Amino acid sequence: MAVIIDLSIFPLDKGGSGLSAFVSRALNIIKESGLKHRLCPMGTSIEGEWDEVMGVVDACYRELEKDSDRLYMTIKVDARKGRRDGMDQKLHSVESKLA
Amino acid sequence: MAVIIDLSIFPLDKGGSGLSAFVSRALNIIKESGLKHRLCPMGTSIEGEWDEVMGVVDACYRELEKDSDRLYMTIKVDARKGRRDGMDQKLHSVESKLA
Amino acid sequence: MAVIIDLSIFPLDKGGSGLSAFVSRALNIIKESGLKHRLCPMGTSIEGEWDEVMGVVDACYRELEKDSDRLYMTIKVDARKGRRDGMDQKLHSVESKLA
Amino acid sequence: MAVIIDLSIFPLDKGGSGLSAFVSRALNIIKESGLKHRLCPMGTSIEGEWDEVMGVVDACYRELEKDSDRLYMTIKVDARKGRRDGMDQKLHSVESKLA
Repeated sequence: MAVIIDLSIFPLDKGGSGLSAFVSRALNIIKESGLKHRLCPMGTSIEGEWDEVMGVVDACYRELEKDSDRLYMTIKVDARKGRRDGMDQKLHSVESKLA
Repeated sequence: MAVIIDLSIFPLDKGGSGLSAFVSRALNIIKESGLKHRLCPMGTSIEGEWDEVMGVVDACYRELEKDSDRLYMTIKVDARKGRRDGMDQKLHSVESKLA
Repeated sequence: MAVIIDLSIFPLDKGGSGLSAFVSRALNIIKESGLKHRLCPMGTSIEGEWDEVMGVVDACYRELEKDSDRLYMTIKVDARKGRRDGMDQKLHSVESKLA
Repeated sequence: MAVIIDLSIFPLDKGGSGLSAFVSRALNIIKESGLKHRLCPMGTSIEGEWDEVMGVVDACYRELEKDSDRLYMTIKVDARKGRRDGMDQKLHSVESKLA
């Protein structure tokens, strides 16, 4: 199935500011994967096959655990058979129905 | 505190396709609120004061419960004292640190 | 509709240990509400009418924002028409179908 | 790091009732893994090493994608260095601080 996820990952042991440095390390990994993605204010959307996407999640986790004693992560997954260009498609589909 | 949330809301009793019609009804309400927001592939980010943002969540729920027997919703909240233009700021802060 | 939520709330500016003190302040508020609830390892389930449950979420937020500069919260909502004793019912329904 | 996750997984194309049959198929897989777990009203907590826990998530996904055209999943992860018996520890730590 084609999968779109929303991924948030950040350390809990670094205080409440400066978290963007950790998010950018994860985003570098997402970019290097070549998977379609979109940085959003509360997480990053990533699109691909299940194995590909979860491989990127794994790589992000391993990068941030290097220098963190506690990590928090949330993942939302929307998996759909036969969907192509799902991120663009979802946005277009909602916007086309707006009042 | 200034709040940014990520909101996903959809019915569970309408099948796995055609959900964008419900999402667009929620997005109409978000737009009418006048709050800063951003439609993302896996949810919509909304920025404002806690009361304002949760008022919009409440309005979205009430709109979709009208004709749904079962609703699912996820909300992520990032609340931070003294933050202004948080959505733009967060994106800029991450992007400026990319390799 | 009858609503069951899963609520997680914790400060991001207090470091990665000692968070249980903040969670217990939220749980005290949940207990005082009289709503049915269940403390779980990754969040607390709360059951009631939408207004009741979201009123408790609001009270938890206000309690923790008193002495936090940054808060993180996740909420999952399962709303279903006509459901009674949903938390017990859901657990029983899953367990009765186990292999 | 020792990891505790909260996992929710269900199909979106099967209507709003009868979802417990799908949840129980996932729970069977979790049980067979031998990992410490706890069924909760809004998700199932699973404890172990990152690889172990994500292996179980993968197995649950593969089981439910067999006969679903659309799946939704949410995962919350709390990873902490050196933690043992994290699920019991977290619950005990919160309860011991209640008013």
